[in-house]
Amino acid sequence: MQRINYPQPKEWDEILKRPTQTVSDIEAIVYSIFKEVEADGDTVIKKYTTQFDKVTLDSLVVSESEIEQASNSVSDALKQAINLAKSNIEKFHAAQKTSKVAVETLPGVECWQEKRPIQKVGLYIPGGTAPLFSTILMLAIPAKLAGCKEIVLCSPPDKNGEINSAILYAAQICGVTQIFKVGGIQAIAGMTFGTESIPKVYKIFGPGNQYVTVAKQLATKYNVAIDMPAGPSELLVAADDTANPAFVASDLLSQAEHGVDSQVILVSTSEKLIEAIGTEIENQIQQLPRKDIARKSIGNSRLILVKDDKEAMALINEYGPEHFIVCVENENFYLENIQNAGSVFIGNYTPESAGDYASGTNHTLPTNGYAKQYSGVNLDSFMKSMTFQKISEKGIKGIGTAIELMAEAEGLQAHKNAVTLRLKSLK
Amino acid sequence: MQRINYPQPKEWDEILKRPTQTVSDIEAIVYSIFKEVEADGDTVIKKYTTQFDKVTLDSLVVSESEIEQASNSVSDALKQAINLAKSNIEKFHAAQKTSKVAVETLPGVECWQEKRPIQKVGLYIPGGTAPLFSTILMLAIPAKLAGCKEIVLCSPPDKNGEINSAILYAAQICGVTQIFKVGGIQAIAGMTFGTESIPKVYKIFGPGNQYVTVAKQLATKYNVAIDMPAGPSELLVAADDTANPAFVASDLLSQAEHGVDSQVILVSTSEKLIEAIGTEIENQIQQLPRKDIARKSIGNSRLILVKDDKEAMALINEYGPEHFIVCVENENFYLENIQNAGSVFIGNYTPESAGDYASGTNHTLPTNGYAKQYSGVNLDSFMKSMTFQKISEKGIKGIGTAIELMAEAEGLQAHKNAVTLRLKSLK
Repeated sequence: MQRINYPQPKEWDEILKRPTQTVSDIEAIVYSIFKEVEADGDTVIKKYTTQFDKVTLDSLVVSESEIEQASNSVSDALKQAINLAKSNIEKFHAAQKTSKVAVETLPGVECWQEKRPIQKVGLYIPGGTAPLFSTILMLAIPAKLAGCKEIVLCSPPDKNGEINSAILYAAQICGVTQIFKVGGIQAIAGMTFGTESIPKVYKIFGPGNQYVTVAKQLATKYNVAIDMPAGPSELLVAADDTANPAFVASDLLSQAEHGVDSQVILVSTSEKLIEAIGTEIENQIQQLPRKDIARKSIGNSRLILVKDDKEAMALINEYGPEHFIVCVENENFYLENIQNAGSVFIGNYTPESAGDYASGTNHTLPTNGYAKQYSGVNLDSFMKSMTFQKISEKGIKGIGTAIELMAEAEGLQAHKNAVTLRLKSLK
Repeated sequence: MQRINYPQPKEWDEILKRPTQTVSDIEAIVYSIFKEVEADGDTVIKKYTTQFDKVTLDSLVVSESEIEQASNSVSDALKQAINLAKSNIEKFHAAQKTSKVAVETLPGVECWQEKRPIQKVGLYIPGGTAPLFSTILMLAIPAKLAGCKEIVLCSPPDKNGEINSAILYAAQICGVTQIFKVGGIQAIAGMTFGTESIPKVYKIFGPGNQYVTVAKQLATKYNVAIDMPAGPSELLVAADDTANPAFVASDLLSQAEHGVDSQVILVSTSEKLIEAIGTEIENQIQQLPRKDIARKSIGNSRLILVKDDKEAMALINEYGPEHFIVCVENENFYLENIQNAGSVFIGNYTPESAGDYASGTNHTLPTNGYAKQYSGVNLDSFMKSMTFQKISEKGIKGIGTAIELMAEAEGLQAHKNAVTLRLKSLK
């Protein structure tokens, strides 16, 4: 890891640069698969499943009996763990329900705001080495709590045409309504346009490689919303001498094992701690099965020594980390002043992996500095707010003249006329 | 207006089609202006201001004295109207504040969600024939209430290098922090990259022509968020014989005068009402200064006769109107079952123009069917939610094993290790 001592604010931009991917070269292939899926639906999806996933499927749909079988093959211990996580995630997301906001802004002018579920949502879960069943909990639980009618899941099949058992188990207990064996670009295209098997959805959620990321971006051009723009995962730890160096090192490594483009940053006022953590990382990394990945992403990473908490905070807000661990004496200062972070983990006994799996918070979070303007996935991500107004005769008399004047000043005579007609009828 | 009687569900797609614009041909010019602004900042912005706005400016900044002068030139009557609207909009948006959501998901596992303001936001207000000062109220008021630190406004100068007085007045009273005489693509590019004069912002709000729309889309590729994808404005009215045909006609026309691509739709179970409204539209349209625009957009529009309320509701939810007026006896049925609409106007005395200006609800709403998945602008549009968790020694003992099991099942050993180390230390 690079060590940087007392950087000047003008150097921050360079120091805080994220490892970026160039995606323009894959836009063309994504676009062409979209066009094919739009035209020929399932046939094309099956063609690409054969090509990319090396399996030929008769049906894209996961059957009831496949789900049952999968469920039976998950160990009881893992089921219990998943159920505990589910219960915590449910509690935290259910608490996010907001009630109707109603205000009589003037006598006879009643306004209110209500949230209603997005009726059709699509969840994408990647395949590959790590079966991310935890992401199903993070997406399907709030979708179900929000009241989404159709919760569609797509995940690529393995070479035997199957989806990981834990994924199917999690999908079933969380209320996913339909599961399809479809991955990658063709899955996103399928949920964007709808096919003979796959329903068209209104919003697509979930992680994926850069093909999936570009496909989700493209989907937004076809009237589909997405959870948020994606980027490589990242963690920033602020720690001082009250932090346990071994714990901090284990957190930095747990982020680093995600992928070679993950980024981890330590910001500290203590040279001694930085030294100790550097040593701990070297010790712990040896034991990791994914040490090659971790070592590469540690190469993208930085140990930054700063002069005080205030400077640390300014630098952290400039970065806007996805995950932010705070392990310092002056904890409240950091909690009050953090403006830009996805999820915050406080103290020596709150590892990032707690939030990744089971504390109850969501792990689908803004990366790439997007914490400056995007929320992580939460209950509201599956709803939209609508406003209502009901104006009485008294009410229109109270605000009518103001509307007429403003409409006239904007040169919109018909807007004025809609009020004038009503006011006249009440004279 | 086209009349359509008892359409079959399979015809709805065709009937509910929106007038669309093709924008791919202007993407290239937008991209090239972005690249120029990124490289040369103010110099390029001034060049394009000369080219597009036909005025050469020494400074892009609106000065204190210009604001003061503008404020003096707005009539007291209009000021009063604006202040009334401001007060209502403030009341309704202030009521949308949510408090911290805190849950102890398990003993020792505290999770909470807090919303924090987006620190830097940019508002775009078009110039042209209608000076949309009302949109400043709709954007700057919630931005200020949310606590955004920098609220930047860009609006194109007229040929004398000035911005409409009502726009400057509204900006001043609503807490805009800086105002720039910059319009179109160059304004969006300026707020995306930052220039010598214009600050870089994190999220851009506001309407605009198709150049501005494409520029906002492009901004999202440079880590800037936008309020929502834009499309032509639209209104759907559901009415029966309890509705006043003259009022309904005036509402349809107030929407139609916005632009030639606006769309208005009437859905009714009453042939008699449809007849009466058709006649009223013909009468009222004659008197409108913007009758040429209104007549063209009325050409895109439809009067649809349906067999009952249930079918009306299904069709309306399929369309997802930006503005939805409900003027029917069976009002509660419509209010309970509407799933997809931006803002809803109820009864004979609630014209759409009330919400456009002064009732208190926001007029920046999802068009083009986006009401299916997007909220209109509201207080939360200027904030993002962050989550926090603090786990005690007792807490990590309670959820540690579940995390270890799940991390292992996902093949993420370092995630497991971060917990194992902590559990070991507590033995």
